[in-house]
Amino acid sequence: MNAINRTHIVRLSAAALLLINLAGSATAQSSLGGKLELEDEGGFFVNPRKVSSAYPGASLATGPAAPGSITVNQMYVHYRIPAGPKGVPLVLVHGSNHTGMTYETTPDGREGWATWFVRQGHPVYVVDHSGRGRSGFNPTPINAVRDGGADPKSLPTLFMGTLERAWSNFRFGPEYPKPFSNLQFPIEALDQYLAQLVPNTETTLEGGGTNTVEALAALIDRVGPAVVMVHSQSGVYGLDLVRRRPDKVRALVSIEGGCETLTQDDVGKFFAKVPFTSVSGDNSVGANSVNGDQRRGGCLKAVNLINGGGGRATFLLLPDNGIPGNSHMMMMDKNNLQIAGLIRKWIGEQVR
Amino acid sequence: MNAINRTHIVRLSAAALLLINLAGSATAQSSLGGKLELEDEGGFFVNPRKVSSAYPGASLATGPAAPGSITVNQMYVHYRIPAGPKGVPLVLVHGSNHTGMTYETTPDGREGWATWFVRQGHPVYVVDHSGRGRSGFNPTPINAVRDGGADPKSLPTLFMGTLERAWSNFRFGPEYPKPFSNLQFPIEALDQYLAQLVPNTETTLEGGGTNTVEALAALIDRVGPAVVMVHSQSGVYGLDLVRRRPDKVRALVSIEGGCETLTQDDVGKFFAKVPFTSVSGDNSVGANSVNGDQRRGGCLKAVNLINGGGGRATFLLLPDNGIPGNSHMMMMDKNNLQIAGLIRKWIGEQVR
Repeated sequence: MNAINRTHIVRLSAAALLLINLAGSATAQSSLGGKLELEDEGGFFVNPRKVSSAYPGASLATGPAAPGSITVNQMYVHYRIPAGPKGVPLVLVHGSNHTGMTYETTPDGREGWATWFVRQGHPVYVVDHSGRGRSGFNPTPINAVRDGGADPKSLPTLFMGTLERAWSNFRFGPEYPKPFSNLQFPIEALDQYLAQLVPNTETTLEGGGTNTVEALAALIDRVGPAVVMVHSQSGVYGLDLVRRRPDKVRALVSIEGGCETLTQDDVGKFFAKVPFTSVSGDNSVGANSVNGDQRRGGCLKAVNLINGGGGRATFLLLPDNGIPGNSHMMMMDKNNLQIAGLIRKWIGEQVR
Repeated sequence: MNAINRTHIVRLSAAALLLINLAGSATAQSSLGGKLELEDEGGFFVNPRKVSSAYPGASLATGPAAPGSITVNQMYVHYRIPAGPKGVPLVLVHGSNHTGMTYETTPDGREGWATWFVRQGHPVYVVDHSGRGRSGFNPTPINAVRDGGADPKSLPTLFMGTLERAWSNFRFGPEYPKPFSNLQFPIEALDQYLAQLVPNTETTLEGGGTNTVEALAALIDRVGPAVVMVHSQSGVYGLDLVRRRPDKVRALVSIEGGCETLTQDDVGKFFAKVPFTSVSGDNSVGANSVNGDQRRGGCLKAVNLINGGGGRATFLLLPDNGIPGNSHMMMMDKNNLQIAGLIRKWIGEQVR
């Protein structure tokens, strides 16, 4: 055996040892890009309201519940406060059919935006919309129909995006199961992604999505001024939040969020002092879906309106900036941290 | 002004400075008892199943969805892997009307069991039952009735514990609003606690709660053998999990979980090798509620059955061990970390 062969053997052994170490640890490999050191972490709720329920349903174990008080409209908040020097706090708000899981580990097991921003020093607050996920919802209108106290036509619709609808609306491809050729979404982990979709149960709440806006206002009242990031359905919630708390939204980042409700009047009253950016992915030009030309065009118009009214707004169409292939779920795309870096740079320029 | 007065003034100023520092940080004070250093943290799903939905409901923004595929039965898993040497992994499973929030920050803002066990070196996996919270559920049976495709009597019941029912069943007091005189539950934070209650939407899934058992089996298949902690409703899920994976449950910790399904046959087949402990709080003797004499008596019987069959089981009634006043929600009680310490000591004795 010559020296070259011996070296080769030594290298193999080192690789084998590494594999043994990885297999022996609690996870085969970390999703995070580095250690996460937290001064504080946990959960709380904002915006709870006590209401009476005439139809709280029945426990399968212990039988029907008598009418009584239940809590509705609350919003679940998961907070992570990094150890060390702090950047500006961020509030991350998901879109339709999703929960805060949107911003956590990607479907293919890479780091999401929530922990990445924390590891850059930002306190981060990830929420579940009021009436969705860990925020719960009001089952009374459904139990009332079951127990004969209301008409079936009074049932709220509990929208659940199907795989086929998600595929085109979230721009994985033109239609299921065909992907775009330059797609950045980790389509090989589609099953993990679909598992995070939930029904839009905020329709069971009086006021529906408005409760999320009120809860976000309560959140920044509690934790102090913050940069707020909204996605898709919550784009218009972000605009409403700026209208309610123009002095507490340090900047609004809209990831393919709807901009259609912004008016000239809003600009003078609220948006002249709140920096705004709208970020759009690829493959939306000519796309016949909710996240296509109309939404993107509406946001370009809003950006121009704000800039024309003395504010500071940016429209960032990723493929026009040399970044092709991003889907509507860009916080999970393979280049998700590249986009997070662009957003963090923008925040740094706008928020002092 | 003499020297004594000057000293007094200096002390006041230091206190004032401390207050300013606290107000200026992102949180007024940490919920954690110390820094949380994580090698990895994030979320994933186990046990997803693709099914077709004829009634996926309608988006309020973009209209009705065509029938298609949706994902059901999945279980959301939030994992935290501590930096440094690792203890045995723990899986924490909540009870009826709750989510994984059960084990997070307490309603009055103190540290919960999840992060405490992580800070003692245990990888910790906190789940939301299949069909609940961030695990989503199947809205099809509800939308079908709304859209005229099914009879109202076919609607699943969506049980939601009322405040009044929770008060007596979870043993905050004999009846709302009277608390037990020695109550350890932080009743001053009741509004925060009630905000974490959600409807039991697993009734929308074929198989109901069985999906949670199957998902827990899939979880320990994925992450490896672990100590599993169950609470209340999930007590019987824990027994079922041991029947399915006797070689992968390192120990079963039941916090006021039901034990009534355990048989002599189970002991010989499964429980002779899986250490078991049942922990009960105070004020349940003679209590006319689900978490009273019957449940506690059933667990004492199960413990005796296991010990009689060659296994290792412990029955821990806290007030008999000098710890009075604990509620059914002892992981949130004011002495929650004292109880966590007892459980960790038991785990250390049983799991090598």
